Amino acid sequence: MKNVSATIITIGDELLIGQVIDTNSAWIAQQMNINGISVKKRVAIGDSYHEIWNALDAEESQADIILITGGLGPTSDDITKPLLCDYFGGKMVVNGEVLAHVKYLFEEVFKRPITEVNLKQAEVPDVCEVLPNKRGTAPGMLFYKNDTMFISMPGVPYEMKGIMEHSALPLVKAKFDLPAIVHKTLLTAGIGESALAELIEDFEKALPAEIKLAYLPNYGMVRLRLSTVLDKKGDADTAITKQFEALKNITGEYLVSPNDDTMPVIVGKLLKSKGKTMSAAESCTGGYIAHLLTSVPGSSAYFMGSLVSYSNGLKQELLDVKSKTLENFGAVSEETVIEMLQGLLKKTGTDYGIATSGIMGPAGGSAEKPVGTVWLAAGTKDSYVTKKLQLRFNRQRNIETAGMMALNFLRKRIYEG
Amino acid sequence: MKNVSATIITIGDELLIGQVIDTNSAWIAQQMNINGISVKKRVAIGDSYHEIWNALDAEESQADIILITGGLGPTSDDITKPLLCDYFGGKMVVNGEVLAHVKYLFEEVFKRPITEVNLKQAEVPDVCEVLPNKRGTAPGMLFYKNDTMFISMPGVPYEMKGIMEHSALPLVKAKFDLPAIVHKTLLTAGIGESALAELIEDFEKALPAEIKLAYLPNYGMVRLRLSTVLDKKGDADTAITKQFEALKNITGEYLVSPNDDTMPVIVGKLLKSKGKTMSAAESCTGGYIAHLLTSVPGSSAYFMGSLVSYSNGLKQELLDVKSKTLENFGAVSEETVIEMLQGLLKKTGTDYGIATSGIMGPAGGSAEKPVGTVWLAAGTKDSYVTKKLQLRFNRQRNIETAGMMALNFLRKRIYEG
Repeated sequence: MKNVSATIITIGDELLIGQVIDTNSAWIAQQMNINGISVKKRVAIGDSYHEIWNALDAEESQADIILITGGLGPTSDDITKPLLCDYFGGKMVVNGEVLAHVKYLFEEVFKRPITEVNLKQAEVPDVCEVLPNKRGTAPGMLFYKNDTMFISMPGVPYEMKGIMEHSALPLVKAKFDLPAIVHKTLLTAGIGESALAELIEDFEKALPAEIKLAYLPNYGMVRLRLSTVLDKKGDADTAITKQFEALKNITGEYLVSPNDDTMPVIVGKLLKSKGKTMSAAESCTGGYIAHLLTSVPGSSAYFMGSLVSYSNGLKQELLDVKSKTLENFGAVSEETVIEMLQGLLKKTGTDYGIATSGIMGPAGGSAEKPVGTVWLAAGTKDSYVTKKLQLRFNRQRNIETAGMMALNFLRKRIYEG
Repeated sequence: MKNVSATIITIGDELLIGQVIDTNSAWIAQQMNINGISVKKRVAIGDSYHEIWNALDAEESQADIILITGGLGPTSDDITKPLLCDYFGGKMVVNGEVLAHVKYLFEEVFKRPITEVNLKQAEVPDVCEVLPNKRGTAPGMLFYKNDTMFISMPGVPYEMKGIMEHSALPLVKAKFDLPAIVHKTLLTAGIGESALAELIEDFEKALPAEIKLAYLPNYGMVRLRLSTVLDKKGDADTAITKQFEALKNITGEYLVSPNDDTMPVIVGKLLKSKGKTMSAAESCTGGYIAHLLTSVPGSSAYFMGSLVSYSNGLKQELLDVKSKTLENFGAVSEETVIEMLQGLLKKTGTDYGIATSGIMGPAGGSAEKPVGTVWLAAGTKDSYVTKKLQLRFNRQRNIETAGMMALNFLRKRIYEG
């Protein structure tokens, strides 16, 4: 068995001026990885004939599979398709199946008149195998050169994913005899990256060469990931599992989850296992906690809702926070978040609640309460805990970190009783 | 004046297995672009000595500036710093200023004991200029080779941004005589990419060669961007402005904003200009609308809050939706969103409101109401409009698209009355 490698090439000027964030590459990399293919490199280039051609030439000999996204739209700045036609020495021909599909989409789904530009989507190089795009008009294309697979897909994430799942991945799996890549990831909280490195120093030094350890810090928490690539899945599983159990023991008191779950999934599983419900009263997190929780399918089983009381008026009106409390202690205070939590639990009747109030910046800070000051309260109507955070980021990051840390704070409270 | 170019190299195994999404590259690309530097390429590689060395070799002759992020952490999987030391032929030395800063951070800010690993952060190659990192322990580093600038920064976005703003960008601007890059972007809604391309076909064909047009579709809306690079900012402005005015006229009825503002910023500006306030009643969008609005600094001036009534119980309790309405028409119905909107406006007393209810998937759909069915109601207590959406994405994308389209729906309603 040989080690199969891939390179991801994403095409579009918008990637080079930073107008969009490239989420496609991460998703494609995940899919490659799960299937035992190691991604060697990701390259992003603009809608330039010369640059795309050079990238194809440079990467061709470096990987077994070249995955290309973008530049397949119907407009004139999209040049990937004619370029691939030239690169692989073909000529453009109308593909009957693609034509029928494009016509179907416009007539039956979009219910818009079809244009000349749309009909051009049905033209493909005669040297490619068409990979159908059920979710859009631009088809995927498969080419070969010197035994390297080139797979071209549109840049719209939803369409790219459809082509990957329905055509590209099955074709890749059929062509290559793939090894087993196994990862196991655990999540820690309450310990910095360096202190964690010292804690597990002996473990790390004693790791066998075929097992790799990675530190992945985010939102004030650190994930530890063990990885290995072996010929047989059983061997890889056994090798990883043994080390993973040891790592779980060493990180014991800081261990949040022995899975690669996200924080909202962890909270959801915990609530479901206890048959409990929760709600939120959000000021500074402004709906982000609710958004995190409702991004998880099935969250309606335990998450009832959130009272996003961004104004002081709504804190009083919806959550029964006393005007005297706001006057005496301010909206960002322990006293206010406790009243928010109690008002919340009265209104929603859920078992648990989490309340947040803080100053996310860039303005609104003071010497006493600088930007990044956040108060949390979490618990039940009879028993709750509070915590003050002092965050040091920009507004967006402060909101995200406060949301994640609030969920972790509630998780601990639920876990402990 | 020469055209100054940059390549961005991001380092980290997590980028190649898709565990994190690379937001650094997009931000760095934006900064380069604003300052008249064209990014030619973005490359992501793993924590591999061989791969990093090869990438440095390959990109060195292709650009004037090589911006490198990642691999500078204190743990053993971070190999960028010793590699750069070897690559530029230096040796590691302790830097006194960095050492003092690391000690200060641990003693005064983190309030954690300092470890051996942390102290290693103060070691830097003796062939680099240190770029101070006020926000963290790993310093930035500047190297030169054959007149190419190499700037290495940590991968933590907040730290990288600090080094870029305080050190890297001023150094780049001092070294190069930069041209003017001007972009102007407008946002359209209610017209597909292909139909838009036909609408502006004549305009596009007549564009002078130095002006580039790009189509940037997202969330069912399309941005059009005009760009040019000229020696003098005044010339570039004049050239773009003339074409941009023409483009605004042609896209007239579909034009949402003649700026590159995001939808929540557009809604906020409109409300502020009219001196009005708003709130939201969110079921299927689960707090995402509130999150979009509160991500904008200063949004407390017009956004009062959101009642995220994820459960039917809370729709009744918080928004006075009648149980009969839920029974007869279901939570996802025109009747329910109208009652949600009216209940919301009664509770919050805001001028405008937006209400959402839908099925985001993957489960919960039926033949009558498939996944992706969303009802919206927007308006005031006396006058409102409703709309049904039929989305075709996965859960995450359905939530995001419903949130953006709901804001656009409310925007139109505010604009028209």
